[in-house]
Amino acid sequence: MSKDGKKFDNAVYIGKRPTMNYVMAVMVILNKGRNCVIKARGRRISHAVDVAEITLNKFFPTAKYKDIRISTEVLPNDDGSKTNVSSMEIEISPN
Amino acid sequence: MSKDGKKFDNAVYIGKRPTMNYVMAVMVILNKGRNCVIKARGRRISHAVDVAEITLNKFFPTAKYKDIRISTEVLPNDDGSKTNVSSMEIEISPN
Repeated sequence: MSKDGKKFDNAVYIGKRPTMNYVMAVMVILNKGRNCVIKARGRRISHAVDVAEITLNKFFPTAKYKDIRISTEVLPNDDGSKTNVSSMEIEISPN
Repeated sequence: MSKDGKKFDNAVYIGKRPTMNYVMAVMVILNKGRNCVIKARGRRISHAVDVAEITLNKFFPTAKYKDIRISTEVLPNDDGSKTNVSSMEIEISPN
């Protein structure tokens, strides 16, 4: 999620699904010749790195990492308190 | 671990210990005025991002990310087969 809360249509959000689902989603965007941003929070950050590495090493060798950003997001809990969660964005360009 | 297998004394390897242990290890290096590299593999990558973010946001606000690298390492298994594991290096400069 970007700072203004807008979802970009070239972003892939890493969730609970199998790794290959996300690899395919990234491939679809790269095959259009557009940059793709893989986004993940908390424990799913490791999963995001797997998705990026598998995409570049096995399926799209011409692609390159354009930028890797890490930051902290503040998420509200049900009881009104707040939790800091690390987040990561991996930007990949098709060539 | 670097490509030639040498351990750098400004590197912090993320393992199973509590987050604050690693934050302190990073602080010691940064306080000497040297760059620090946080390294992690597999599921511990998420943990490495937490360590880096806590260090920069809470303890060392002048520090900056100098480089964030992700790659794949091939690890041998006991039965002779090999496993690909994602790895991450976060380089932090003290100012």
